[in-house]
Amino acid sequence: MGLLGAIEAGGTKFVVAVADENYNVVERTSFPTLDGEKTLDQVIAFFDKFEDIDAIGIAAFGPIDIVVGSQTYGYVLDTPKRGWSGYDFLGRMKAWRDIPFFWTTDVNGAGWAEFETGAAKDVQNMVYLTVGTGIGAGIVSNGHLLSGYGHPEAGHIFLQKHPEDNYAGHCPFHGDNCLEGLAAGPAIEERWGVSAKEIPDDDIAWKIEAYYIAQAALDYTMILRPEKIILGGGVPHRDILFPLIRESFSEQMSDYLEVPDLEEYIVPVANGDNAGILGCFYLAKTLL
Amino acid sequence: MGLLGAIEAGGTKFVVAVADENYNVVERTSFPTLDGEKTLDQVIAFFDKFEDIDAIGIAAFGPIDIVVGSQTYGYVLDTPKRGWSGYDFLGRMKAWRDIPFFWTTDVNGAGWAEFETGAAKDVQNMVYLTVGTGIGAGIVSNGHLLSGYGHPEAGHIFLQKHPEDNYAGHCPFHGDNCLEGLAAGPAIEERWGVSAKEIPDDDIAWKIEAYYIAQAALDYTMILRPEKIILGGGVPHRDILFPLIRESFSEQMSDYLEVPDLEEYIVPVANGDNAGILGCFYLAKTLL
Repeated sequence: MGLLGAIEAGGTKFVVAVADENYNVVERTSFPTLDGEKTLDQVIAFFDKFEDIDAIGIAAFGPIDIVVGSQTYGYVLDTPKRGWSGYDFLGRMKAWRDIPFFWTTDVNGAGWAEFETGAAKDVQNMVYLTVGTGIGAGIVSNGHLLSGYGHPEAGHIFLQKHPEDNYAGHCPFHGDNCLEGLAAGPAIEERWGVSAKEIPDDDIAWKIEAYYIAQAALDYTMILRPEKIILGGGVPHRDILFPLIRESFSEQMSDYLEVPDLEEYIVPVANGDNAGILGCFYLAKTLL
Repeated sequence: MGLLGAIEAGGTKFVVAVADENYNVVERTSFPTLDGEKTLDQVIAFFDKFEDIDAIGIAAFGPIDIVVGSQTYGYVLDTPKRGWSGYDFLGRMKAWRDIPFFWTTDVNGAGWAEFETGAAKDVQNMVYLTVGTGIGAGIVSNGHLLSGYGHPEAGHIFLQKHPEDNYAGHCPFHGDNCLEGLAAGPAIEERWGVSAKEIPDDDIAWKIEAYYIAQAALDYTMILRPEKIILGGGVPHRDILFPLIRESFSEQMSDYLEVPDLEEYIVPVANGDNAGILGCFYLAKTLL
């Protein structure tokens, strides 16, 4: 077998890497995200050095078109990021070299790593929720990445507001109606006027944050019945959140549904910062 | 090929039927739901008349255990319905005759009929939502009924309250927090103090009802990205609801996500009252 390739295509930074069949990284580099064409020039310059790449996994910032058969399959869709709206990301890669590519979202990439070898490695149904600059989810149902008319946008479900929260919300589309508008990193900082890092563990800020994440977890539970809900991204680095989320989840659920033990149900990521690249390798391997 | 069997096991009424391989009904009957043991006596007395049944589809009121490998797989779980909590429904049927049974929820049965030959026959991803005495969903993702740690309970997602609604809610677990507590048939009647049938089309009652169903449809859309959302059950018999739901969905979505044309996206059932039994036959056939 030859090498596996990985492209973790973030809105701020691209990471590219190649690994052998056992996922040992042969070479890895990263660079700031420019416009589509210029960034892909660098991606291709990196992979050009390797003749024997069997497949590449691409986990891209979105929204992207992942509907097989769609006219714009493989494109980046409307995005405020300059030089990316309507860019044919996958087409450029296919024109470069005729090998299999796994094309999916950044959260699906990281989520798949958690599913294969991370916190969800023993289950078939999971939600990987990343809470950072934005909020998104990679969902695995019965062992497969869930998608339909497009990829999930589970950060934009509507939530009830916490009674002690007067913040106007951060989502340009949904204001304070949706999870992302209420609970993403920028919402925390704008609501309290300080960096999240400066907010102490016992501040009500974390109770409110936990309330929103717990309510979203409840909705995912009702609809998807996952066996695990895994929280990644920058915000869950605050450890105090996990007990607060579990407590709020339990209160809001009111014993309605049987779920796994909450200590095992709502958990942090296991793969850490490496999840994105690792997920790309695993997804590339599924193509062989 | 022999015959197919169907058991539409409702909390109020059981319908049982047999059909030939082309789904032509050979015999069909119904009777009121008694306790588990007595009701199943009647079910078995009905099917005993047919020697050559190849498989039976069972679509049962819930909650039920549909997790293959679970110790209580095939059981009815905790329910206020007398004589059913912990009843081994599937076990009783298997003890009666050693043929394949498809064991699922009532909404999955009716939803599967919509998926096979109804409003969702041309898509692979759909939500069938029934709004009646309760609210439940059958979800098909990538051509398969979605389940995980259990079956979906999508009627219990949390919703924002309509600003003009002061109703305290009907859900014994979640009060006015969840879709079922706010929008099921009994909630409409309790809120307005009259039968839903007596509420005229231009009453604000229907705007409020549409707002809740639309918000739920928005959450299902964000998480599942279905190609169709199909509304069944008694409440959507009021035709005025469909334009109101589509309008409210569009307002709440605020152009965030591309969805199919709303006239084709949020639609009524196509199979009518026959969907439950039809779905059981189709599901039975998948076992052969």
